[in-house]
Amino acid sequence: MTESSALFRPVDPPDAEIAREARARQSSLTKPADSLGRLEDLAVWVASCQGVSPPHRFARARAVVFAGDHGIARGGVSAYPPEVTAQMVANIAAGGAAINALATVSGATVRVVDIAVDADTDDSVSSHKVRRSSGSIDREDALSQDEVIAALTAGRDIADEEVDGGADRLIAGDMGIGNTTPATVLIAAVTNTEPVAAVGRGTGIDDAGWIRKTAAIRDALRRARPVTRDPIALLRTVGGADLAAMTGFLVQAAVRRTPVLLDGVVVTAAALVANDLSVGASSWWLAGHRSTEPAHALALAHLRLDPLLDLSMRLGEGSGAMVALPILSGAVATLADMATFSDAGVSTRP
Amino acid sequence: MTESSALFRPVDPPDAEIAREARARQSSLTKPADSLGRLEDLAVWVASCQGVSPPHRFARARAVVFAGDHGIARGGVSAYPPEVTAQMVANIAAGGAAINALATVSGATVRVVDIAVDADTDDSVSSHKVRRSSGSIDREDALSQDEVIAALTAGRDIADEEVDGGADRLIAGDMGIGNTTPATVLIAAVTNTEPVAAVGRGTGIDDAGWIRKTAAIRDALRRARPVTRDPIALLRTVGGADLAAMTGFLVQAAVRRTPVLLDGVVVTAAALVANDLSVGASSWWLAGHRSTEPAHALALAHLRLDPLLDLSMRLGEGSGAMVALPILSGAVATLADMATFSDAGVSTRP
Repeated sequence: MTESSALFRPVDPPDAEIAREARARQSSLTKPADSLGRLEDLAVWVASCQGVSPPHRFARARAVVFAGDHGIARGGVSAYPPEVTAQMVANIAAGGAAINALATVSGATVRVVDIAVDADTDDSVSSHKVRRSSGSIDREDALSQDEVIAALTAGRDIADEEVDGGADRLIAGDMGIGNTTPATVLIAAVTNTEPVAAVGRGTGIDDAGWIRKTAAIRDALRRARPVTRDPIALLRTVGGADLAAMTGFLVQAAVRRTPVLLDGVVVTAAALVANDLSVGASSWWLAGHRSTEPAHALALAHLRLDPLLDLSMRLGEGSGAMVALPILSGAVATLADMATFSDAGVSTRP
Repeated sequence: MTESSALFRPVDPPDAEIAREARARQSSLTKPADSLGRLEDLAVWVASCQGVSPPHRFARARAVVFAGDHGIARGGVSAYPPEVTAQMVANIAAGGAAINALATVSGATVRVVDIAVDADTDDSVSSHKVRRSSGSIDREDALSQDEVIAALTAGRDIADEEVDGGADRLIAGDMGIGNTTPATVLIAAVTNTEPVAAVGRGTGIDDAGWIRKTAAIRDALRRARPVTRDPIALLRTVGGADLAAMTGFLVQAAVRRTPVLLDGVVVTAAALVANDLSVGASSWWLAGHRSTEPAHALALAHLRLDPLLDLSMRLGEGSGAMVALPILSGAVATLADMATFSDAGVSTRP
């Protein structure tokens, strides 16, 4: 069993003293007490992450889309053929995908990384590639022990690259035909949920596909049972290289004290494992949205994260988190930029 | 009884043929069918409002904050003293309020107009002023017949000024100590709801204040009963000049085929009356958020509007709508800017 400490420094919590300062500042601003609701909590959280009150306006938001194929996709668990993964990696790199359009509005930039696409991809996206596709988890391990460590390390290094490059908040996204199947297995394993209560329609499978997907998840869960409490072994057995890389990315973002907006079911599956790998990492994460996948709600509840948006999205790529990003910017702007009662000469409550 | 047709041209619905075109375009874009959930509906709606598919990126978002005092505020129905209205008008004009901070993030600009503030305000905000304060609706009419027509006309003219000035989407906001009391009366009257099921804490009244507010709403509702089906008489009897101006603004935005994001309980009360005044106007409006005021949920349900956000906000000023604004921008960006399957060489479903 590989220990988390061999790969990651410990995660410290956000600064509680700064949170108190930020909370006190909220009540000095020209608005009724608590009237900004959840925006007030968000702004206080950002201040405690940054260690300064009022918080800084964010300077650089960055989405990283982790791409990988999955052997299980050959078993008819997705509405789309596996070659779409590589095609969509090229589409994201060219700026044509949903995440690109949304990032322009939200003031973020997008990077796509090939972790385990079952094709040769451009050098610009393949520098962290671990292997071609992950194993078919209903009947074989997703990864070897060396590969799962390589994937976790890739995610860690990508987080370091982004934070060192100036990113002060991060989004993790996913791209991979069939990837909701291993994601659902990870969530069902960690939350001890029966397959039928967790499995969803992914990108839009029909009833026959849903039955195949549920059977694959059931078989993979049986294989997962002995390693449910060992996060790295769980990723190796029923995860995948892309999921392991996301896991490393999410832990390292917390190590680097950088807030992350989580996206949908695939990223949140990685988050569930990441919080088992490095307990407390979840205090650096925010849930951007709730998708239509049943397993997503299970994972969010387990992490005690309350999503900002519920717009029936189920696209992945980081798209739900990207739509939520301006809410976080708005929250910070109120705490950073509003006038106080005394500055503005506004009467307080009698 | 004054007829709506004396003040407003008829409202036409958004373009249904363009909506069909936009819906068809959605299924050609590089994403699983319907996977953007509510964003897809929003983008289709914007296209049908603009009469063009794909829709244009919006060029100018504008929030108009309607300020007014209310005689009822002297009766202890608010947590704040009435002089705060004029102070906050100055704060908004100076850029120090929540709506200003949020607008910067959302890429919008803010205008505050004094419709009935109980003080002399700066010339820059007072050109549409109807009177000082509105009447105390528990025992007298809010406005005279001339004043309610003047206020509706002011709102209509403000919408014209903004649309003629290039605004292609609008937010209506409110500022006025005590204004949730007439708003709740309007909503309870139109939806035929008992006061105790509609009244909320406004900016944060205590239990004694809540009892005073509920009694005032009960008394005003008794006065409203004979005119519930006559929108202009209702505004005159238990509304207020700010609420009537918002009503005129919302109708005229629909006449001018300009989408509006509704904010909280005060604006939505005006929307309820506006849709009675000009049936079908609500097809040009989107609900930005759900506030914590019980009457707000009643009004949204009556208008069959499903809010985008539910963040426990209760500030007013247009703040909830302003937080929602980037979601609409994101929706439009996906429909306008994403690559199609054929452009990007991505395989479709078998």
